[in-house]
Formats: sequence, C-alpha cells, structure tokens
Amino acid sequence: MTQDPSSTTACDCGLIDAHTHWIPQQFPAYLGQRKGVPWPSMAPSNAACDRNVMIDGKVYRTVPDTSFDAARRVQEMQGMGVTHQVVSPMPELLSYWLHADDALALTRFMNEELAALAHGSPEQFTALGAVPLQDVGMAIAELERGMRLGLAGVELGSNINGKPLGHPDHIPFFAAAQSMGAAIFVHALRPAGMDRVVGPPFIEQVLAFPGEIGLAAASLLTTGVLVQVPDLRISFSHGGGSLAMLLPRLQHAWQQMANVTKAIPNSPREQVRKMYVDDLVYDGATLKHLLHVFGETQVMAGTDYPFAILDREPARRIDELALGEETRRLLRQDNALRWLGRDVPGKPSS
Amino acid sequence: MTQDPSSTTACDCGLIDAHTHWIPQQFPAYLGQRKGVPWPSMAPSNAACDRNVMIDGKVYRTVPDTSFDAARRVQEMQGMGVTHQVVSPMPELLSYWLHADDALALTRFMNEELAALAHGSPEQFTALGAVPLQDVGMAIAELERGMRLGLAGVELGSNINGKPLGHPDHIPFFAAAQSMGAAIFVHALRPAGMDRVVGPPFIEQVLAFPGEIGLAAASLLTTGVLVQVPDLRISFSHGGGSLAMLLPRLQHAWQQMANVTKAIPNSPREQVRKMYVDDLVYDGATLKHLLHVFGETQVMAGTDYPFAILDREPARRIDELALGEETRRLLRQDNALRWLGRDVPGKPSS
Repeated sequence: MTQDPSSTTACDCGLIDAHTHWIPQQFPAYLGQRKGVPWPSMAPSNAACDRNVMIDGKVYRTVPDTSFDAARRVQEMQGMGVTHQVVSPMPELLSYWLHADDALALTRFMNEELAALAHGSPEQFTALGAVPLQDVGMAIAELERGMRLGLAGVELGSNINGKPLGHPDHIPFFAAAQSMGAAIFVHALRPAGMDRVVGPPFIEQVLAFPGEIGLAAASLLTTGVLVQVPDLRISFSHGGGSLAMLLPRLQHAWQQMANVTKAIPNSPREQVRKMYVDDLVYDGATLKHLLHVFGETQVMAGTDYPFAILDREPARRIDELALGEETRRLLRQDNALRWLGRDVPGKPSS
Repeated sequence: MTQDPSSTTACDCGLIDAHTHWIPQQFPAYLGQRKGVPWPSMAPSNAACDRNVMIDGKVYRTVPDTSFDAARRVQEMQGMGVTHQVVSPMPELLSYWLHADDALALTRFMNEELAALAHGSPEQFTALGAVPLQDVGMAIAELERGMRLGLAGVELGSNINGKPLGHPDHIPFFAAAQSMGAAIFVHALRPAGMDRVVGPPFIEQVLAFPGEIGLAAASLLTTGVLVQVPDLRISFSHGGGSLAMLLPRLQHAWQQMANVTKAIPNSPREQVRKMYVDDLVYDGATLKHLLHVFGETQVMAGTDYPFAILDREPARRIDELALGEETRRLLRQDNALRWLGRDVPGKPSS
C-alpha cells in the first residue's frame, strides 16, 4: 500500500508541541510579610472540570483541568497527534510585578511542581520553569536550582515590568543560561498596545500578543544579545509575532542609516537565523513565510495548549505544507530537540 | 531588440508613489490665544539644503528642501522612476494633540498649501490633506472644504491621542469620507510600544511603526468599519505593518471563540481584502506575502519620500518579483488610481 506523503502517519517521528502551558492544581498560601500582594490562588468554577485562577480577589481566568492533570493531558495529546509537550507556566504566573523574594517563593514552588511533572512522565513532558528576572542575580540562582531539579530551561516574559527583554541589564542572565545549557522560551506577556485595540474582552490577547513578542525579539537584535551570547538556545512564541514584518525594515535601516549600522553589531537578518520560533500562526502561507525568514531548522510545532485559542491540529498545519520528509521531521521534532539541547535521533550530538 | 521583461522600461505605465510626505517651507505664526501651544515653525539648519522643523523650541526633525520644493521633488522623482506622487503631510503635523481650533487653523493652512501644490503640477502631484479628527464634526467640515479645494482626500494618524482609529466614535467621519469620495491614507503616528524598544534614537520609528499601523488596521476590522462604510477607499502605510501576521490569529479567534464571532460582523480575512496597503516593506518575499493576504488589486507602490528611511528603488522592488504584466501594472499604477477614485486607463470607471 502506498502511503500519502502528506498524511501524518507517513512520518515515523513524533510531534513535539513546544508551546503548552501549565497551572498548578493548588497554590501554596502566601507566607510572606507584605500586605496586598496579588498572590494567585485556585477556586472552584461553575463547570465541573474547570477551575478559576484567582488574582487580586478576581477571576483572572477559568482554566480546564488539563492545565494541571497529567493523565488528562496525555489523553488529549493523543487526540491531537502530539507525542511530547514542552510545558511552561501560564505567563501571568511569571510574577515580575511581585517583590523579588515573593516571586522567588512562587517560582520555586512552580519549578518543583513542574520538575515533578517531567520526572513522572519523561516520555510525555519536558518542563520549563520560571525565574524572578526582576532581580537578575536571584533569577540566575533559581535557574541553577531549577536545572538541577531537571528542568530543561525557563519561560521568560517578553518584557520585565515594561523593560524590553533584550535590555543590556538582562545579558548576564542570558550568559548564565548559555553556560548552564538552559533553553529559553519567550512568551508574550502584558503586551504593549492594549489601548490600541477595540473589541470583546479577550481580543487584546489575540491582537496585542504578536506585536509584543515581535518587539521583544527585536530588542535582542538591536542590543546584540545573540552576538554576545552566541550559543544561547532561545525561542519565541506565536511565530515571533510581528518580527517577520519588522525584520526587513530593520535590515533596511541597518544598511542605510549610519547611526543604526553603528549601534547594531551584526546583520539583523543573520541574527534572526539563530532564533527559534513556534509555528503558532494558524495559517499555512504565514508558516511558509516563517520558514523563509527564520530558516527550516528554527521553526517548531506549538499550540498554546490547553487554552481557548489553541491550535487543535498541529500535525495537519505542518503536513499540509507538503514539505520534504526531512523538513517535516525538523518542524515536527528535531528543531525542538535541538532547541532543548537534546539528542536528535540519527544525528551525532555536537 | 528583445526587452528584458524585468526591466522598468517594459511597462508603458507610470509609477505612482502612494506614500510621500510634505512639509510647508514656512509655517504661519500662531495667532491663537493660548499659551505654550506646541505650534511648529521652521528654522535654518547647518546643511545648506536642509531646514529644521521646530516643535516646542526643539528640533523635531531636520528635513531636506525636497520636503517643500516642488521642482526639486520632480527632479528626484525622475531619478527614482516615479511619475506621480501622492503627497501627504509629515504625520507629526496632524496635530491631534492641539486644541481642535488650533489644529483646525494649522490644517487649514496646510490644506491650502497642499491643494496649491497639486493644482500647480497636476501631472506630478495628488494631494492628501489633514483634518482635526479630535473633533469629528470639525474634521468633517474641513474634509469638505479640502475636497472643494482639490484635495483627493486626507491622511489620518493610526490613533487619535491614543484612541484607535477604528473606534466607533470615528465612524461618522468615515461615512462622510465615503459620501464625498475622499481617499484615506492611514499613517503610523506616535506608536504604541516605544518603551519596548532599545537602540539608537531613530530605532523607535523603525521598529514601532509596523505594529502601530497593524493595530490601527485591526481596529477597523474588529469594529466593522468596512462593513458599515463599505465603499470607503482606505489605505494603510508600511504594508499594513504587522496586520499580515495578526490576521490569521484574528481569523482563528473569529472562527473558534464565540464572543469574538459575535462581536466582529464579518470574516476578518474577507474584510482586509477591501483595504489598500502600500508596498513599503523593503523585501520581495514580504511583498509577495502582502499580495497573498490583501490581494493583487490592493497593494500600491510607496516610498516614504523624502525621509531618511525611504525606499529609493520602488520600481525595482516591484519588477524583481517577476509578476505578470497586468499585476505589475496594478502595483505600479492602477491600484493607486482606484484608491484615489481616479479613472484607470483602459477600464470603464464604475
């Protein structure tokens, strides 16, 4: 029987979902000394399988039990054709707006829970933790602890209380991540431009996330983080968002405007080819454009599981592009493995 | 002699540059009664052919004499292979942050100067004016006056003092523009996300403009301006910026999330195919992607002339895509004519 080369079964490789989120089933009580800290907690919701994440006494988001229940996740993964998930905290839990020691307490708890998840089902889950990057020294120490626990790296927000991720203040953290071999996943967080959006409540996240993650990635280009920390393995959510549209304009400015040339250490177009992005762009032609901009070795499957906006058919999205078998395998699996610092089957590890 | 089909001479049509800017040679003195109004003025610069636009007692920008000198513009247009320019004010002159009556005084002056420019050289120039959209009624009245003067329409900023352009408050203006047959050119202005950018001074405009214009265009989709005002002819600067990346995500949300479906009156993907965009994206593959997203009838040449970031080779950018002769003609000329409400050669006007 001849197999249709565009069917998902033609690939004998797995499908790694590089963009999924997690929330603990229960948060510890706040044990710090401060008053009015927006410490998260969990509360029942009206729907049987959902729970409410409470922040500041209000429902921040109603989330499904797949946010914390590993067995339910595995069940749903099978339905989506996903063999392995890279799991990272719901971004609002990154807690940069807490006092650093409160944020440390919360991220320590989450990192232990996340490490336990990956430890319990290593075939199914790889875990990325969180660090209080509002205090760079503290973040480096917690990254080190997290890596010893078995995390593959950490998720970072696109900005730290408004400070762009590529700001020179953060370079020591990136250098530490490089030396520890930690993978970094940058996720859009509290985006710029919320006030430029009109529409129903959730629309801000729909429309403002891509610009936010694009500017975060661009901030690494303009300060040359990937020139200074060349072996950093870093990925960006939502296909890098607007970055694919910003890049030619930045490249043009870099080529034509003396002050831009002088300030940016290396060709932006070359720098982006060291960045990884997920393929969460919901469209075949846009995904093809990402392959052109970032390169076939840099794009990975990602779904935003288990949240409402998730892409339920990550395999189909890749398979319908009718890529060669090797490229298809890169997108489904090998690029994510390389980003995570894992062995790629059939390739000697470098 | 066989002609190279990719050479600019193969097309017997012109090249209309739909995105160029203008500054008056001199501003009138402020005649209002208020104190501390950031009214613009002109001052000599160190370079012989440049002048300084002064705002709030500081140099806002040093601009070349081609900003106001029609003869010098025509000279340079010939060098760039441009046969006709659509001329609009430098966006910072749109003056939404002035008291509406002060802004009206300034825009009245500019509209008269711009109409005179187009009147003096109708073969070379079409003029778009400015209106004080911080007062919708006043803006409609000044649009009407401007159209009688001979303007083809107006340039609008992407936001009006932070309020998104697609906000329902602005719909009466769009309806008036439709009924007068005025063309609208939306330009990125005072962008969101400036605080997310690190780099040399001008880098904010390089990196924040695309996201800003993308959100402005998206705000028209989410409030359904083009459903309510279906014959509006409206274009967006910088290829619509991030919109091409936002659109599939918005479309996905519109298809999958009930509150988004309910709030947005029509398929976003269909709505964008009524929008015009310029091709100022500095890259062939990105331009091809725009043609896919917006359609071959909606993309027009645009350069940002005469400012530093301009694309000096608008003809080459289109010609190197090796499009069919008909599509090439659409991008070089016919789409801009249709947007402006002018007759397209060889087509009966509708």
